[in-house]
Amino acid sequence: MSTVTHRTQVAIIGAGPSGLLLGQLLARSGIDNVVLEQRSPDYVLGRIRAGVLEQTAVDLLAEAGVSRRMHAEGLPHDGVVLCFDGQLHRIDLHALTGKRVMVYGQTEVTRDLMDARGASGQTTVYEAADVAIHDWSLDGAPRVTWTAGGQSHELHADFIAGCDGFHGVCRASVPQDAITLNEKVYPFGWLGLLSDTPPVHEELIYVHHERGFALCSQRSRTRSRYYVQCSLQDKVEDWSDEAFWAELKRRLPASVAADLVTGPSLEKSIAPLRSFVAEPLRFGRLFLAGDAGHIVPPTGAKGLNLAASDVGYLWQGLVEHYRGASMAGLDAYSQRALARIWKAERFSWWMTSLMHRFPETGVTGPFGERMQQAELAYLFESKAAQTVLAENYVGLPM
Amino acid sequence: MSTVTHRTQVAIIGAGPSGLLLGQLLARSGIDNVVLEQRSPDYVLGRIRAGVLEQTAVDLLAEAGVSRRMHAEGLPHDGVVLCFDGQLHRIDLHALTGKRVMVYGQTEVTRDLMDARGASGQTTVYEAADVAIHDWSLDGAPRVTWTAGGQSHELHADFIAGCDGFHGVCRASVPQDAITLNEKVYPFGWLGLLSDTPPVHEELIYVHHERGFALCSQRSRTRSRYYVQCSLQDKVEDWSDEAFWAELKRRLPASVAADLVTGPSLEKSIAPLRSFVAEPLRFGRLFLAGDAGHIVPPTGAKGLNLAASDVGYLWQGLVEHYRGASMAGLDAYSQRALARIWKAERFSWWMTSLMHRFPETGVTGPFGERMQQAELAYLFESKAAQTVLAENYVGLPM
Repeated sequence: MSTVTHRTQVAIIGAGPSGLLLGQLLARSGIDNVVLEQRSPDYVLGRIRAGVLEQTAVDLLAEAGVSRRMHAEGLPHDGVVLCFDGQLHRIDLHALTGKRVMVYGQTEVTRDLMDARGASGQTTVYEAADVAIHDWSLDGAPRVTWTAGGQSHELHADFIAGCDGFHGVCRASVPQDAITLNEKVYPFGWLGLLSDTPPVHEELIYVHHERGFALCSQRSRTRSRYYVQCSLQDKVEDWSDEAFWAELKRRLPASVAADLVTGPSLEKSIAPLRSFVAEPLRFGRLFLAGDAGHIVPPTGAKGLNLAASDVGYLWQGLVEHYRGASMAGLDAYSQRALARIWKAERFSWWMTSLMHRFPETGVTGPFGERMQQAELAYLFESKAAQTVLAENYVGLPM
Repeated sequence: MSTVTHRTQVAIIGAGPSGLLLGQLLARSGIDNVVLEQRSPDYVLGRIRAGVLEQTAVDLLAEAGVSRRMHAEGLPHDGVVLCFDGQLHRIDLHALTGKRVMVYGQTEVTRDLMDARGASGQTTVYEAADVAIHDWSLDGAPRVTWTAGGQSHELHADFIAGCDGFHGVCRASVPQDAITLNEKVYPFGWLGLLSDTPPVHEELIYVHHERGFALCSQRSRTRSRYYVQCSLQDKVEDWSDEAFWAELKRRLPASVAADLVTGPSLEKSIAPLRSFVAEPLRFGRLFLAGDAGHIVPPTGAKGLNLAASDVGYLWQGLVEHYRGASMAGLDAYSQRALARIWKAERFSWWMTSLMHRFPETGVTGPFGERMQQAELAYLFESKAAQTVLAENYVGLPM
């Protein structure tokens, strides 16, 4: 099998939102890049993920030139609702912080980025098999190899951006003694259901309930995303749509449940909850961004937003390098990104710990439940505590 | 042995600050009371405890007519200092909340209350042996029995206030199926040293350090109280004064350690850290207040302050009963007191979890340490997060 050789400035592994956003930002800054993805475009678009964007992410998407449809179709939300003891408590994000969030599905973000990339003239390779990365030390000459259509390929680059997710090849290629993996696994999962039904409420509702957490989320005015906390032993095929809707209704106040419009699921899946941070995020000429470097539990919707801020720091570092011949921004990448990541990890852990029911064998137990109740009671009385929630929810500054 | 019979309106078990404060407040409201204590006055004064009073406690001491010396000799503090990663960060309590705290030792509070009680003409019985409480159901006729000087005594009262601490007889007398005990034990203790040396810093310093927590506290301008986190296996006799001072210095930034004036210990002891809440706090005509009902870990200095607010609620309820013949305040006692207690338990647990090093087998582990670091880093950047700390530290409203 002969090898075709290619050359670019930045090789980006992964065509999810991190890789595509980085590619767009670099392309608009005149930095040549190639995106490699082992899956097909349809597979990438089929992954149902986050739906809440911080202003920081919205701004970066605008920088990347992909904000037109988001601003037309996305739903800016000024608040978020917490339900505790059957009562709804609204956190007025905008009044508390002057900021808001944008509800716009990750699938739509990815589609917009794909469309923009198609128009940019930059190369994207889908269904690349056997992707491997090589020689990324600081004084090395990075290469990426893969096969596609019976042909072996080799891409030479100045830098490699590992945007290939938690299960990707980039982090796995780093020698174990060069990386620290910090992890916490939660003793429950989220069962999610997507349906073409109008959302039960204008804003998101996060529900603390004795049967377990629930979340009423949405992707648009006609598409809803609901979740219920479930056991890690549960299997998605054991949950009929009817069983899901019945369980969700049990966890909502009667007034909300009465407004719930149910319908057939477009997608239904169980996700485990995990906190994970790899340190550092830079290894010579290899940089990890997004899920390749860290995972947050979904409570608080920080996953995609952290990927966006990673990409923002990395883009700035690369621009500084190519325009100013300075490595300062790239040298600072890991530290700058991790400082923001750890704060978002803390917020996500806190909000997860606050809102879920922990099994007897879990980290909290009965005393932990009383701490949840006391913290929620305090939260709804304290403007300062609400501001802490709000400023983290809309996103800490980059 | 013959029995001497007495009669009062409120029988108060325990002559610590809770019992004496309640006695004074009741006496000044014209409600007759007897305080019973199994120990001697000197023993009670010898217990070294808290030294930071919230405004709520200061106000109640003023109501009780015992604030003159506190205002003359106590030290109002407008801020508190947290040390993290070798840096001092001041939390400006007064700027953030408009309130301050008063540094005045529990021993001094107790002495002031003893002096006032001596002048009030109300009966106090010290060294009462075999104290037992009887018949406190709502339609019962409460009695307290004890022996003293070879004489058996019986006190008839309308109500019994259990202010006799964690190991007291009152809570222990309640049938197990009528009370729920919520408890969390922490995997470390505080080794405390009291010395007649000037405090190392004007304000308190709470230290997060890789060797463990430390606290630079004080009782006056010439008397210091220092603590270092220690193992529960440690014995106080294994800690010489020299070893204590050396360990404390290791945990302080060099600039602070250089100012530390050491001296012989007046007292040195190890206290385990515990969160504990009994529910409810009222059983017919029996009311638990202070440590008899709940314990907080000392981080955040809430123990004496919660005792004071319990006493405040109970005093109000008793006054309402005797003046207005209404049981409403007494009926609400448990719920009102517990609402405030649980929030202070949450704050104490949070501050303990934030500032201590947890052993490998503890509740947090390496991920927990990163959460501490992220939370501290966030705290020092966020006015809202500092306000949350400050408003809890100075005390939530009654």
